[in-house]
Amino acid sequence: MKNVLVLIPLTEEQKTRLESIGPDCSYRYSNGAAVSMEDIQSANIIIGFPDPAMIAASEQLEFLQLSSSGADAYVKPGVLRPGTVLCSVTGAYGQAVGEHAFAMTWELLKKLHLYRDDQAREHWGDRGTVGTLRGATVVVVGLGDIGTEYARLVKAVGARVIGVKRRPSACPDFVDELCLTDELDRVLPEADVVCSVLPGTASTYHLFDAERFAKMKSSAIFINCGRGTALDADALCEALDRGVIAAAGTDVTEIEPLPAGHPLWKQPNMVITPHISGGFHLPGTLDRIVEICFANFEAYLKGGELRNIIDFRTGYKK
Amino acid sequence: MKNVLVLIPLTEEQKTRLESIGPDCSYRYSNGAAVSMEDIQSANIIIGFPDPAMIAASEQLEFLQLSSSGADAYVKPGVLRPGTVLCSVTGAYGQAVGEHAFAMTWELLKKLHLYRDDQAREHWGDRGTVGTLRGATVVVVGLGDIGTEYARLVKAVGARVIGVKRRPSACPDFVDELCLTDELDRVLPEADVVCSVLPGTASTYHLFDAERFAKMKSSAIFINCGRGTALDADALCEALDRGVIAAAGTDVTEIEPLPAGHPLWKQPNMVITPHISGGFHLPGTLDRIVEICFANFEAYLKGGELRNIIDFRTGYKK
Repeated sequence: MKNVLVLIPLTEEQKTRLESIGPDCSYRYSNGAAVSMEDIQSANIIIGFPDPAMIAASEQLEFLQLSSSGADAYVKPGVLRPGTVLCSVTGAYGQAVGEHAFAMTWELLKKLHLYRDDQAREHWGDRGTVGTLRGATVVVVGLGDIGTEYARLVKAVGARVIGVKRRPSACPDFVDELCLTDELDRVLPEADVVCSVLPGTASTYHLFDAERFAKMKSSAIFINCGRGTALDADALCEALDRGVIAAAGTDVTEIEPLPAGHPLWKQPNMVITPHISGGFHLPGTLDRIVEICFANFEAYLKGGELRNIIDFRTGYKK
Repeated sequence: MKNVLVLIPLTEEQKTRLESIGPDCSYRYSNGAAVSMEDIQSANIIIGFPDPAMIAASEQLEFLQLSSSGADAYVKPGVLRPGTVLCSVTGAYGQAVGEHAFAMTWELLKKLHLYRDDQAREHWGDRGTVGTLRGATVVVVGLGDIGTEYARLVKAVGARVIGVKRRPSACPDFVDELCLTDELDRVLPEADVVCSVLPGTASTYHLFDAERFAKMKSSAIFINCGRGTALDADALCEALDRGVIAAAGTDVTEIEPLPAGHPLWKQPNMVITPHISGGFHLPGTLDRIVEICFANFEAYLKGGELRNIIDFRTGYKK
């Protein structure tokens, strides 16, 4: 009998479905705030997003099915006992995060953040020239689920899309030019918008640094909706201060929550949202997460093929 | 010899082109701020956006080629002498204003205005559920140049589009359902987003009033990028205060500039931009305006067919 700890909110109907997949298991339902160390330490299977500090290489845990797309917090040494199977829910957040990045791009292009500031002081005044995605070149760095959705959106409204990915593949129909990560520096100077949806891995750490911003146009907009560690925040602040690039938007920061007083908060041409583009904020996302988690739970119990197994060495799915 | 007063910014090359169209005319170049009453009163032809108060039924003025899309300020009695030919530049602003309305729609759907407010106080906090255009029903009221652009954009990212227009026509491919203005009340309850791009005419005055907001979903977003007079601002404030609709965005107000202290400024779920979606803010718009103005100037001088002649009775182009 396996102990299954479920940390995602399920309806009664979904609980019944889950329990019918593994009728011999014992189930406990909780959430991130209420869960105890004992709950986590006694679980053989966890579905959800447990605090990594509470796992502490649990001897009982054999399968962790994350409800998040990013797995960076769980591949660090000491979090999971070697041999624990770790899966993400890549595929559930594409629409939510891709659309958020798209909305942020338009906000910056049309200076809506500056007009919002003006509105707060009841000021009616002109902020000058605006941009467009029609005919713009957009470099999308990371072409997984989220990058694909973002690329489709910008392409649909008239942008030219350059997709950058780790591994060679055929060029999708919504990408005009596909290139590998080591060609990034070649394409950055062409970009009107650069959108990073990279995960937090050793190879993406501070990929966007002073040198990369220097390669971009002074009119370029930089968007980050992957992980905060892919971005050197100090370098971004300096690039914005010195007009190396025009504006930036991020939903993620290296330290979350971003502490009050951090210079990023104060950048006039920077918009920050508090890592909310995913989660369960877009109706439908939770349903997609539940489907992926249930399918993997069934595959794990019955020896089927698991989706989104994370490779501990790279932090990416295998 | 006709006196031509030009109030739009032209390059030297464009001035040469203009003068070659009418070599017998006398040209004066100025702008809205510097132009004198005498300049306006002595002009036979004006190209631009003159202060209506300075025209005062000028006896000399025979042709006014506006550089704006809206003509509402010039069809009022006493502004133009009867017989003056009035043309707008419908067609030049579609992309600029349509994209602005689209950007505002996403800003509200993703609550970026609220996150901007939080950023100002360096607050990292969750604002809850967000919306999407994928699968949403968008009612576009007014299917001229701007409405067409907006409809194309929302359709391209997955919305179902209901177009509302004055005159019957074939249904364009970017519209799922086309209906006439008198069917508006039937389709409003279906809308997740209502976007008005109506001009300021007698028939559109306060079209969006308490009764119309009451017909919308409590989750609906209302966008106005046409003219401020199409909206009853008091009714909108009340609808937002009482949760009759969820959020609103406008680039235009009945009185412009919107005075400090006006209740619209203070609506938390309302975004306001200061009538900047058009103008020359989007590069390329001015070039389009110049082309339309030059073509009409030539047609006027040589007896060709004028585009966008305004009907003084309706305020719409004929």
